[in-house]
Amino acid sequence: MPDPGAVAAVLERVRREQPLVHVITNFVTMNAVADALRAFGARPVMAHAIEEVAEITAASRALVLNLGTPSTERLQAMRASGEHARACGIPVVLDPVGVGASQFRTAWALDFLAHTGAQVVRGNGGEIAALAGRRGAMSGVDGVIGDIDVATESRAVARAFTTTVAATGATSLVTDGLHACAIQNGHPFLPTITGTGDMASALIGACLAVERNAFIAAASGLIALGLAGERAGAAARGPGSFRAALLDALYGLTTQQVMDESRFSQE
Amino acid sequence: MPDPGAVAAVLERVRREQPLVHVITNFVTMNAVADALRAFGARPVMAHAIEEVAEITAASRALVLNLGTPSTERLQAMRASGEHARACGIPVVLDPVGVGASQFRTAWALDFLAHTGAQVVRGNGGEIAALAGRRGAMSGVDGVIGDIDVATESRAVARAFTTTVAATGATSLVTDGLHACAIQNGHPFLPTITGTGDMASALIGACLAVERNAFIAAASGLIALGLAGERAGAAARGPGSFRAALLDALYGLTTQQVMDESRFSQE
Amino acid sequence: MPDPGAVAAVLERVRREQPLVHVITNFVTMNAVADALRAFGARPVMAHAIEEVAEITAASRALVLNLGTPSTERLQAMRASGEHARACGIPVVLDPVGVGASQFRTAWALDFLAHTGAQVVRGNGGEIAALAGRRGAMSGVDGVIGDIDVATESRAVARAFTTTVAATGATSLVTDGLHACAIQNGHPFLPTITGTGDMASALIGACLAVERNAFIAAASGLIALGLAGERAGAAARGPGSFRAALLDALYGLTTQQVMDESRFSQE
Repeated sequence: MPDPGAVAAVLERVRREQPLVHVITNFVTMNAVADALRAFGARPVMAHAIEEVAEITAASRALVLNLGTPSTERLQAMRASGEHARACGIPVVLDPVGVGASQFRTAWALDFLAHTGAQVVRGNGGEIAALAGRRGAMSGVDGVIGDIDVATESRAVARAFTTTVAATGATSLVTDGLHACAIQNGHPFLPTITGTGDMASALIGACLAVERNAFIAAASGLIALGLAGERAGAAARGPGSFRAALLDALYGLTTQQVMDESRFSQE
Repeated sequence: MPDPGAVAAVLERVRREQPLVHVITNFVTMNAVADALRAFGARPVMAHAIEEVAEITAASRALVLNLGTPSTERLQAMRASGEHARACGIPVVLDPVGVGASQFRTAWALDFLAHTGAQVVRGNGGEIAALAGRRGAMSGVDGVIGDIDVATESRAVARAFTTTVAATGATSLVTDGLHACAIQNGHPFLPTITGTGDMASALIGACLAVERNAFIAAASGLIALGLAGERAGAAARGPGSFRAALLDALYGLTTQQVMDESRFSQE
Repeated sequence: MPDPGAVAAVLERVRREQPLVHVITNFVTMNAVADALRAFGARPVMAHAIEEVAEITAASRALVLNLGTPSTERLQAMRASGEHARACGIPVVLDPVGVGASQFRTAWALDFLAHTGAQVVRGNGGEIAALAGRRGAMSGVDGVIGDIDVATESRAVARAFTTTVAATGATSLVTDGLHACAIQNGHPFLPTITGTGDMASALIGACLAVERNAFIAAASGLIALGLAGERAGAAARGPGSFRAALLDALYGLTTQQVMDESRFSQE
């Protein structure tokens, strides 16, 4: 179980060490993800050409792979980066965007998790359920159909692929298959802008760069984004002003805020 | 002819039904378009790999094809999606970005309209004129050269391709080739940010998802964006604050505003 | 040496002539770069398909090539555009993003500069040092390792490739290999958002479109961005509000501000 002090320590280390994080992400939210990493204190590098990904990964301290807007070439580059990261001992976050909505993505993600693996898998409830083998759980890239017991599905994915799962939603859940932690920090404006899930995955990558305990790193990333969302939501008039305020709040996030305002509990 | 009540009803249905809209759009404004759809109440899904576009389109309630930053692969995916949409009865919006500025785009757009077709074509005056066969009407992707009678060119395109044309500008025009409607809602700040044309096409897609009358759907999307632009423009100090305020205003747009502030007239 | 009057004149000409600027840029900051060009008064056109780049370049008044998120296809298109620009007498800005962090980028940039050439090369200190043949100067795309004498490296690059170098940082430097100018305008918030380097290159492209003296054009672009940054920084609470305020400030930038607040000196 993380405690507020451990989360605050991760935040402090990110700010001090400014880790380089290699992100291969979808075309929709690249700028938002890069800005979030910078505001958090990390340094993003984005590159997806097969000719250079291994070199970029090798120079980075974490790798974040995001399945949005995939193409055959990009999936090949993501695989190459992932294998290089494993060989170098660099931690990997997989964000299985839209898994369950497209066979192309589902097949790739399951194969990647089975053969290359990731330290953390961050998705919404529908995506995690799809990785657990549930059919028909997704509508588009962020819609969930029917009732899903996210805790059960997350535990199944964590165990099947020996990973830590971070399932985000109104309440977010982190589990390594044995222990679980529910995170209450967040704001209703977070899902009104595109890319907060992608940002969550990237922030977890920055945390993994400085903290190898994947459970603590995943919880830290989600708590930081949730806290920034709360601060931003209080100031925003809608999704446009929320997007700007979210970056301001991530940039201004303090360890004191983490100590005082983190809300999570063991499940 | 639409009336304010019909436009308000479309807005209400989008918010209630939250239709999934598949958008294959240019790389420049992906985030802005996705955010605009969300703020309007719809759910965007962006995917352009030939391996998955048909599956994504089939699960969606409208398809928006945007010609900006084209490539051979993406044009193939747009064609495949368009044909699948037609086969499934899913409405299509074509945004012929930069047609007239590049033969590559012009040839593709004319071929697509002739052989696959779209329920709505949304462009600026120069793009519509280029589709009508006028040469030399475009400078770049948003510059119009010389005098164009947008009403005449729009009517010609609507008739030639049995579609509804939405030609945006200081005053916007919607025509099915027989009837025409001029929309006055809007703000001078709208063309100062990149992607408001792309947003207009996407919002029309969201409207088409819930309202199959293409004339009413096209007018509804443009009126909604115009009203949000007016509200945002009143609060903005420049294009940066306008972009944020525009999303806030789209998110906060009410049916009462539509009833009270819509400004359009039969031509 | 530029003087404030020359810089103000460039700004005025950009606003009056609204030059079309063809930008082939990375996927991360496309929207930010297009918005910055518009706010400055120019008209962006973005296109990277080999099938259309020559036609788009030929219709433009400047070409900006940005090496971020490269791929083999995009590098081919950049080369084709660059050669077409040279043949047509259209000025070119090269932004060697991440050169030094990837052999793929370094090799291409050196080959392009040797065989096609550019009027201006705009990069950070590490990128310029990498072009000068220094190894190990870069960490990621914006980190500089160790001590670099930017003035020496910039002069070497300017002489080796007969170009004007704009090396940006806390203090920015413009040199044609013979003369040098140090620019103090700027704000600490500028490097906290993604893409201000890319924006700088694009604004220099807009200036080159109206002013063929590359030394004056490069200084003008950097001074304009620096002045806007100062205005924006005074109003911002963090990187999110800074991004919006920066566009507002670019849009509102006056020749009077240039005359009164430019800070640069001959080196």
